[in-house]
Amino acid sequence: MRTVDLIQRKRNGEELSPEEITWLVESYTRGEIPDYQVSAFLMAVYFQSMTDVEVGAMVESMIASGERLDLSSVPGPKVDKHSTGGVGDKTSLICAPLAAAAGVKVPMVSGRALGHTGGTLDKLESIPGFRTNLSVDEFRDVLNRVGFAVMGQSDEITPADGKLYALRDATATVESIPLIAASIMSKKLAASLDGLVLDVKVGAGAFMKRQVDARKLAQLMTTIARRADLRAQALITDMNQPLGYAIGNALEIMEVSQTLQFSGPDDLTKISLELAARMIYLAKVTATMEEARDLATAKLRDGSGYAKFKDMIAAQGGNPQVLDRFDLLPNATGAMEITSPRGGYISHIDAEEIGIASAMIGAGRDTKEDSIDPAVGVILEVKVGQKVEAGGVLCRLYFTKEDRIGEAAERVEDAFRISSTAPEPRELILEVVS
Amino acid sequence: MRTVDLIQRKRNGEELSPEEITWLVESYTRGEIPDYQVSAFLMAVYFQSMTDVEVGAMVESMIASGERLDLSSVPGPKVDKHSTGGVGDKTSLICAPLAAAAGVKVPMVSGRALGHTGGTLDKLESIPGFRTNLSVDEFRDVLNRVGFAVMGQSDEITPADGKLYALRDATATVESIPLIAASIMSKKLAASLDGLVLDVKVGAGAFMKRQVDARKLAQLMTTIARRADLRAQALITDMNQPLGYAIGNALEIMEVSQTLQFSGPDDLTKISLELAARMIYLAKVTATMEEARDLATAKLRDGSGYAKFKDMIAAQGGNPQVLDRFDLLPNATGAMEITSPRGGYISHIDAEEIGIASAMIGAGRDTKEDSIDPAVGVILEVKVGQKVEAGGVLCRLYFTKEDRIGEAAERVEDAFRISSTAPEPRELILEVVS
Repeated sequence: MRTVDLIQRKRNGEELSPEEITWLVESYTRGEIPDYQVSAFLMAVYFQSMTDVEVGAMVESMIASGERLDLSSVPGPKVDKHSTGGVGDKTSLICAPLAAAAGVKVPMVSGRALGHTGGTLDKLESIPGFRTNLSVDEFRDVLNRVGFAVMGQSDEITPADGKLYALRDATATVESIPLIAASIMSKKLAASLDGLVLDVKVGAGAFMKRQVDARKLAQLMTTIARRADLRAQALITDMNQPLGYAIGNALEIMEVSQTLQFSGPDDLTKISLELAARMIYLAKVTATMEEARDLATAKLRDGSGYAKFKDMIAAQGGNPQVLDRFDLLPNATGAMEITSPRGGYISHIDAEEIGIASAMIGAGRDTKEDSIDPAVGVILEVKVGQKVEAGGVLCRLYFTKEDRIGEAAERVEDAFRISSTAPEPRELILEVVS
Repeated sequence: MRTVDLIQRKRNGEELSPEEITWLVESYTRGEIPDYQVSAFLMAVYFQSMTDVEVGAMVESMIASGERLDLSSVPGPKVDKHSTGGVGDKTSLICAPLAAAAGVKVPMVSGRALGHTGGTLDKLESIPGFRTNLSVDEFRDVLNRVGFAVMGQSDEITPADGKLYALRDATATVESIPLIAASIMSKKLAASLDGLVLDVKVGAGAFMKRQVDARKLAQLMTTIARRADLRAQALITDMNQPLGYAIGNALEIMEVSQTLQFSGPDDLTKISLELAARMIYLAKVTATMEEARDLATAKLRDGSGYAKFKDMIAAQGGNPQVLDRFDLLPNATGAMEITSPRGGYISHIDAEEIGIASAMIGAGRDTKEDSIDPAVGVILEVKVGQKVEAGGVLCRLYFTKEDRIGEAAERVEDAFRISSTAPEPRELILEVVS
């Protein structure tokens, strides 16, 4: 088998056999095929896509490249939730404790902020003392005791994905539906789950800009799950404006705390409850989605989700008091108001621009090597559909360093669109794919 | 400037600025951008193409990456001819001595066989003693004395092209019109020519399978030439069946000898005369193409082209007697007849299949490292349109080693199509682009 022939056939739109895909992934992981051939192959995949059979072979060979996360010693139904990435998306930290409070075991293997999107690990690490670099033994222990544990991706699990993702990141081949699906699902299938809830974001602030692409991705991921006997459902949710009001790591922990105390933003509460309910349902804690929704809501109202989150923070070395005393979290030293140039209705808040501006002042990272400032970010004062007066505050930037603040402020200002008439209300949860 | 952003913009179909293209080529040549990013970029170019402005910037930066071939000490108009590569295409060795006999200086910088197509250097090296690895001083000296000299591409000229071509060859990104045009034209523009005749092959045996693509390539190359004040014309010629009867290095030298003595195949003689005439015309030796055609024909008839070829062979260390005594050339030790399974008209001879079969038995190479057997090849006994009896000889394979001969024979057999009715005659010279 010659790599150049496989590249050429993919380039020409032909389907490769499962054996050929497997050979390619295995040889690459072993270092027998150079990066420059694989990056050309990935770009050809970007343009020509892959069939379900090709993606299936890719997923299997990526899983086979490493170890599996063995959770057989943890009793109870294990269900994870994964988001394709958004701006202000802190739903994981709300739905997971709610599901755990309802008896689901939630072994959450999470990622870091990259580009304009945030990462669950970075958000949690803004809590003083919190550790995400758990050993597998520690992870199993927290999961057993609390029902909810979070750690980063281990190098031992799907190393092929780690190598391929780094290459895709450097070669503009991230945004390919089959490659995204293979990357996510190989990691999730290696974690021996019973169920998986996927939150596929769509809109200006998401990787998927069009609903038709989000649907394709959701369908492909649930198809892969079904073939592997993993119960999975995908929500397609709107990511045109940021989710909630807070963007930035410690700022989002504060908003999580408020939401788990039933005083959070409507959009964030609504999506988090729906995600929690689907986790509960897939775990077979309840027989119907109706009951699952009721149970999730009850766990929010009675504060048991809030308590579960505190338990998890304590179990992973963090100070749970931060949820009640925000002064214990890293705080910004400067703030800047962005005001509206004129009165009207907020018709659009570009989530990607807000995400980029937050990353600029330190809340995110351009490259994996950049460090993060946990204190900084943006707090929206308005959401789409609200009325604003001329000179009214649109949002505040919280920063610790002055550099790039002017550039970030301009971007944030440009992210808001004001119109004279109220915009049509948008659905938050657009579709369910299962 | 970040490479990944340039890849992404090209992937999205955007035009890069000349500065961005130049930066990319320069940084890559200096080793500051890794192969894996450039191969992804090249695959994006394969799918999204490049604008004339982008190609222009690429050509200029590739020229600037090395030295120019300085021919200012050689008096007279300097015109080269370049073919995009075909099977049995030995026209260079006929048109160049004819043009030289008419007073044109022909500084021919040639390539080697790769894949199913032959290379001028390999053909000449089948002549005992012949040297293609001339120094620039030696090259200028032969050109001055004989009017026609041939050497290989020097590493000092357009090193960026050398590096990019090797990468394209390994990543299935050779067949891109702007990349082909940039590669050819950067080398030709670095050679300080006054004129250039391009022979763009189209059909089953050529890189360009469709005439519309061949036309695009021809137009792009003549556009690049015009912007650089180089007089250039391109012929688009048929490469569905092999040119002439001989395929293989020494076998083609024999056919060149016959053709320069005015007893060669019609198709080869016709194209070679037209190419020679255009070289003579672009050199401004004559005022019109009519006169140029008459002059080229006169130089063929009076044997002065033949004499010029002998002078060149002698000047480059070869034994010119080989043109009269074919037993002095390497000769195959075995021959195998391929016969027709039934009577009828030859409706098609697949040049690519014949080329691959010849390469298989040693006339060509799969990779640049393979060595060539100068003696072996194929001699056709029939051409498209001719009648053949059942059992009549279609061609003969000449070989020195038995291995792969069966496989090659099967391929050659499959290359012939026999039909009950005579095929429509095809034009040999399809278009002129200038």
